[in-house]
Amino acid sequence: MRVPLTVNDFLYRAEAVNANAVAVVDEPSQPGAPVQTTTYADLLMRIRAWQAGLDALGVGEGERVAVVSHNAARLLELMYAVPSSGRICVPVNFRLRAEEVGYIVRHSGASALFVDPELDEPLKTVQARHRFVLGGETDEHVMRFDVAPRTWSDPQEDATATINYTSGTTARPKGVQITHRNIWVNAMSLGIHLRLWERDVYLHTLPMFHANGWGLPYPLAGLGAKQVVLRKVDGAEVLRRVDEHGVTVMCGAPAVWNAVLDAAATWDGDVPGRGRVRIVCAGAPPPTRMIQRIDEELGWEFLQIYGLTETSPIVTFNRARAADTALPARERARRLGRAGAPALGVQVKISDLGEVLVRSNVVLDRYWANPDATSEALASGWFHTGDGGTIDDEGYLTISDRKKDVIITGGENVSSIEVEDCISQLAEVTEVAVIGVPDEKWGETIKALVVRTPGAEIGEQDIVAHCRQRLAGFKAPTTVEFRDAIPRTATGKVQKFRLREPYWAGRQRGVN
Amino acid sequence: MRVPLTVNDFLYRAEAVNANAVAVVDEPSQPGAPVQTTTYADLLMRIRAWQAGLDALGVGEGERVAVVSHNAARLLELMYAVPSSGRICVPVNFRLRAEEVGYIVRHSGASALFVDPELDEPLKTVQARHRFVLGGETDEHVMRFDVAPRTWSDPQEDATATINYTSGTTARPKGVQITHRNIWVNAMSLGIHLRLWERDVYLHTLPMFHANGWGLPYPLAGLGAKQVVLRKVDGAEVLRRVDEHGVTVMCGAPAVWNAVLDAAATWDGDVPGRGRVRIVCAGAPPPTRMIQRIDEELGWEFLQIYGLTETSPIVTFNRARAADTALPARERARRLGRAGAPALGVQVKISDLGEVLVRSNVVLDRYWANPDATSEALASGWFHTGDGGTIDDEGYLTISDRKKDVIITGGENVSSIEVEDCISQLAEVTEVAVIGVPDEKWGETIKALVVRTPGAEIGEQDIVAHCRQRLAGFKAPTTVEFRDAIPRTATGKVQKFRLREPYWAGRQRGVN
Repeated sequence: MRVPLTVNDFLYRAEAVNANAVAVVDEPSQPGAPVQTTTYADLLMRIRAWQAGLDALGVGEGERVAVVSHNAARLLELMYAVPSSGRICVPVNFRLRAEEVGYIVRHSGASALFVDPELDEPLKTVQARHRFVLGGETDEHVMRFDVAPRTWSDPQEDATATINYTSGTTARPKGVQITHRNIWVNAMSLGIHLRLWERDVYLHTLPMFHANGWGLPYPLAGLGAKQVVLRKVDGAEVLRRVDEHGVTVMCGAPAVWNAVLDAAATWDGDVPGRGRVRIVCAGAPPPTRMIQRIDEELGWEFLQIYGLTETSPIVTFNRARAADTALPARERARRLGRAGAPALGVQVKISDLGEVLVRSNVVLDRYWANPDATSEALASGWFHTGDGGTIDDEGYLTISDRKKDVIITGGENVSSIEVEDCISQLAEVTEVAVIGVPDEKWGETIKALVVRTPGAEIGEQDIVAHCRQRLAGFKAPTTVEFRDAIPRTATGKVQKFRLREPYWAGRQRGVN
Repeated sequence: MRVPLTVNDFLYRAEAVNANAVAVVDEPSQPGAPVQTTTYADLLMRIRAWQAGLDALGVGEGERVAVVSHNAARLLELMYAVPSSGRICVPVNFRLRAEEVGYIVRHSGASALFVDPELDEPLKTVQARHRFVLGGETDEHVMRFDVAPRTWSDPQEDATATINYTSGTTARPKGVQITHRNIWVNAMSLGIHLRLWERDVYLHTLPMFHANGWGLPYPLAGLGAKQVVLRKVDGAEVLRRVDEHGVTVMCGAPAVWNAVLDAAATWDGDVPGRGRVRIVCAGAPPPTRMIQRIDEELGWEFLQIYGLTETSPIVTFNRARAADTALPARERARRLGRAGAPALGVQVKISDLGEVLVRSNVVLDRYWANPDATSEALASGWFHTGDGGTIDDEGYLTISDRKKDVIITGGENVSSIEVEDCISQLAEVTEVAVIGVPDEKWGETIKALVVRTPGAEIGEQDIVAHCRQRLAGFKAPTTVEFRDAIPRTATGKVQKFRLREPYWAGRQRGVN
């Protein structure tokens, strides 16, 4: 028997088996207000109310619903409600500026746009056929608890469930089309490797918009685990929640764990969760020292995955092996610093050019309205990650280099081309190259190398301020260096790796 | 990207990630001989050698390869090698008689037949285009280490991977066609619920031919866990292996755990595996007392699944919830005695007639060469299990009754019609009805109610001996009662449930 592999499998089971279990512990709606807790029965009721609301608005199957929100129960609800009713969810990075969000809303052709209350004002100019501010009365206005949603007529596992915009090698972000089957296979593979079960308590330290929170909300619901919402990452607040809710699993980029380590240094008493918490790190290769400190200073287990928005995201997985426990701490940490071994259902190989290639059901269907990018990424029958890497004789992947002009800072992908485009708009600038340089806190930070128009007087702070007005804060350069020229190849190409070299000298790899 | 979901996913990963890990600890080839241990690299080499051997024999894609064997590394190898090269594996119950095995080999149209050395003599009359006795020189004769197997041209996830013959409502066993996708989804769902990982050590207490060892060899390989072969179940031997190999997981019917409990009662010293071993029970509803004893006398965790050969087999899963730990031991055991809650990817409902229905990717594709049975089982879009059950308000299924004429004794399905057919061949018998009655050791045992031909002098032992000559031992009745008549309905039907009633009086359910 063939039954479509869809996100509904996870929601069906949540309701059938864990109706009375706590599903979501939300943030208080305002400071001081009580924490909102819903069971999976409540959650399913709310999901149906969102669906019936979208029915009433005339948002049909296959139409896009964009959501720009900090982590919140209502974002989670929409991430379940939209694809499980045959619509396509477009979760948008809440750090983006109005112009960037506007591009995504227009490019995806979203029929409906939901905006976090804090973002209503900054995103005033972004419109769609339907635009709502999330929270309170507005949710109640859209959600329809009085009618059942219409039935999704023809769920197909190859239908697109979400479109996740990601910065790539182009000036504009690309829309990654993730199918129900992508989500299903990622959920099961990640679920097995993380050994998720209904006794887990998950703290949403990862932004939910990031590759759909790495796809974790689906297996967490399917298994009936408790999900605790965290609106903004703050090291001390993470520790407080771990303590208060008995958290067992969290995910995030190295910057999150650095913030937690900082907070733990001044934490009063024993750090909570020792021997209980496992954390999953991804988004950038973690420093060995950090891995070791997580073990020593927190007593939490460190796991790593490597993946991209285009891979749903699981590609490789790293967890200490039984034999590793006997190794010295530093060697254990070094081994955990590798990206990991291919996950179940994923094949990985290295191309002749040293690029990491992936073949799996977790790989995107295509880029939305971008056949050129699709064929470039998938033409060989393998997905081209744009990352350079090596596979050691244990079968473990290590990421060593980045083939694409992408900088990863604090877990956020930034297209250097997008930043160059922005700086080039300045009349005072003749030429610009943007690169990532090592940074203690963010892994990498953005540096602009600029050639000024002869006679122009523009300074570093002018350029930074110009970018901050037009781009999300994390995309703006933190430093600017002025040069007489940008070295190019005979064919006129900028060789980024040569520009990067002096900043990365003496390091084992050219990315962080 | 779509990649076919096939058993190869598990083998690829075994080789890519766990090449040097111990894959299989086999039984000694003869008493006193050393234990054979293979790594996953060895295992993959051997799998390819089997495949190249089948190539050399001219056994093509889609052809059937039947194997009749006690648990052994070579059976496991064939269960991997045959489907992963596009052929169809037919693992046959080693307890069957020559006539029964012959029927399966003929009905499946097997091109090749592999027979355990101990079964060579009893199965002498069973022939196929190619027939080999497994073990030693014969394996070396067939296996080709010198050439690579040809590439499987077109792996499809809906292709049949195995045909597993099962006793049903008919006189002859039916061939259950299990696809690669069935195996894949079962493997991932079972893998998540059992929380399998590479640190597990699995003891094959379950016959590997039984629904492909419940499909477990696939996720175990995919995760790189160690598999210890057990050729024949013996309670004390199970305990010795648990101790020797650090076993963490085992599966089996209640009869297996009763044997282990018996052995533990006279075990010298502490029972091994306390607090480490988890056992998975299925095949028949386990008595509450047994569940409680496993906890108290062994200190092993008791898990239950419910399923059928037709469902790959996982349908429901039961593991103690965190909240259950506070309950009295007896109540905890009672709750674990339920069949469980629907597994991830499985939907379960109860029909108006009280029958358990299943909708899932783990449900068989069809019965081999039996369109009538297929349409009867699948016509409604749900699979009809033939079991009666109820779902409680926690979403947990309890099996209460059997709609089909199947008796389950010691974990083996027996078609009462098949036994009736056999007894009816006796001239001294006018009428016969075969039913299951409760049994302390086997859950159920087989009773024949017989009406003798007027003047005939046949006795109980004559009938039992007649069956033992023609059927597998477990199918023969253990008791015979002579009656003047078998009560029938107005339309001439025998009402089995009425015949069973007096034997099951005072029990909460009508199956064991």
